[in-house]
Amino acid sequence: MLTYDAKIRTRYGETDKMGVIYHANYINYYEIARTEMLRSTGLYSYDEMERDGVMMPVVEIESKYLMPAYYDECLTVRVTVREPPTARITFHYEIYNEKRELLNTGRAVLVFISVKSGRPCRPPKKLIDCFKEYF
Amino acid sequence: MLTYDAKIRTRYGETDKMGVIYHANYINYYEIARTEMLRSTGLYSYDEMERDGVMMPVVEIESKYLMPAYYDECLTVRVTVREPPTARITFHYEIYNEKRELLNTGRAVLVFISVKSGRPCRPPKKLIDCFKEYF
Amino acid sequence: MLTYDAKIRTRYGETDKMGVIYHANYINYYEIARTEMLRSTGLYSYDEMERDGVMMPVVEIESKYLMPAYYDECLTVRVTVREPPTARITFHYEIYNEKRELLNTGRAVLVFISVKSGRPCRPPKKLIDCFKEYF
Amino acid sequence: MLTYDAKIRTRYGETDKMGVIYHANYINYYEIARTEMLRSTGLYSYDEMERDGVMMPVVEIESKYLMPAYYDECLTVRVTVREPPTARITFHYEIYNEKRELLNTGRAVLVFISVKSGRPCRPPKKLIDCFKEYF
Repeated sequence: MLTYDAKIRTRYGETDKMGVIYHANYINYYEIARTEMLRSTGLYSYDEMERDGVMMPVVEIESKYLMPAYYDECLTVRVTVREPPTARITFHYEIYNEKRELLNTGRAVLVFISVKSGRPCRPPKKLIDCFKEYF
Repeated sequence: MLTYDAKIRTRYGETDKMGVIYHANYINYYEIARTEMLRSTGLYSYDEMERDGVMMPVVEIESKYLMPAYYDECLTVRVTVREPPTARITFHYEIYNEKRELLNTGRAVLVFISVKSGRPCRPPKKLIDCFKEYF
Repeated sequence: MLTYDAKIRTRYGETDKMGVIYHANYINYYEIARTEMLRSTGLYSYDEMERDGVMMPVVEIESKYLMPAYYDECLTVRVTVREPPTARITFHYEIYNEKRELLNTGRAVLVFISVKSGRPCRPPKKLIDCFKEYF
Repeated sequence: MLTYDAKIRTRYGETDKMGVIYHANYINYYEIARTEMLRSTGLYSYDEMERDGVMMPVVEIESKYLMPAYYDECLTVRVTVREPPTARITFHYEIYNEKRELLNTGRAVLVFISVKSGRPCRPPKKLIDCFKEYF
């Protein structure tokens, strides 16, 4: 299992007229957190992976909103990979505010697609290496 | 059951470097579709409801991405309410492109909150009236 | 001179905690309006132009915010081209709400870039044709 | 004169189908940079200011795009205040990539509005204090 805590400060443009962070932005936070998790391994980055010819479109999103987030909060987006990547990879999420209150839980499923062919492919070896020691 | 087909043209700023519509934008499309559905009843609008003191935060989102959407496509976002609103209301979604290909399916669950107290409340009578004849 | 009035309904996710449309969204509205203007000529679309190998990055934006826009308003984004395109093209903007109040004025300057070479190029003949009869 | 260098990592959802950061996002970067500048003084934050009853809507934006920014770059958004705030405050911007190339220059003018009355007001004393020693 690999867990990483990404810190994301909420932006003014992400608020809505209810005075809270608009719900669709959490889906962006999910993406930032998994990108930062990958970078934190020191072995690979999502950007390098795309340049290596593999992209990872999202095929499934699930999100539960428990409490609102507010402007200028420094959120902790905890992302966890529980199983090694196969044809797909699942990221699990928990978002906390600075008081350590759980605001949101979620899940994102991504697949591996060859940039060249547009067809499903295996996860790159470098990506598998990122996760190897955690399973 | 109440079904409504909202037409949404994809925007340049909604594309990403994969050349497709970035997945988080579908969550915005869901919101636009349910707003337009409500307006289409001719009886109420989401904006009026907020001015009447009731807001509807999202508590759950689910989204499955089957095929990509592209820039400048005119998508049909079909939104369906299958059951009358209680303490919550569930919207079901299907998104089609102009070739009638199914791109995405999803679900959004919203609750009713009093703007004044910030606490859960009943759905406004006017909202119930919108759906009355369909169940 | 070519003028076109695009109708854009403001979205919930575009509001901010001041209760108004967040200012950066106007820059998106500018883009939608010039796209719709081009489509309205019946001769060309921005999407076709990119497929023909020419893209139009923005090199300059100016925007003055006079009055706020609110959620669920149907804005009129008036876009005007005052001079035929050369190496660049300038779009002038005025945004009105439903009461015909002027909310915003602006300007966007775009250039023509070859998708293949990444270098400046001439405006496509089809684009020039769109504007021909107006100057 | 007060200058601050904010570091902003570009997000996947901020890219567009040209493969670069969509131009409207720079307007968001401007806002993040001025917020971080204020926070960096250790004396005040924009969030506190709003809670103190003063908000700062943008009345003018200017932006020149010189070179594109790409996904996952760590941009330096240099924000400078050249004159003490009066009824308005002007922020000047320069955005650099990691190679120290200048990508963008811009300007944002903001005014002070009382949250309660919705009318122009003076800049809060705490805000003036933030800038005092720099002029």
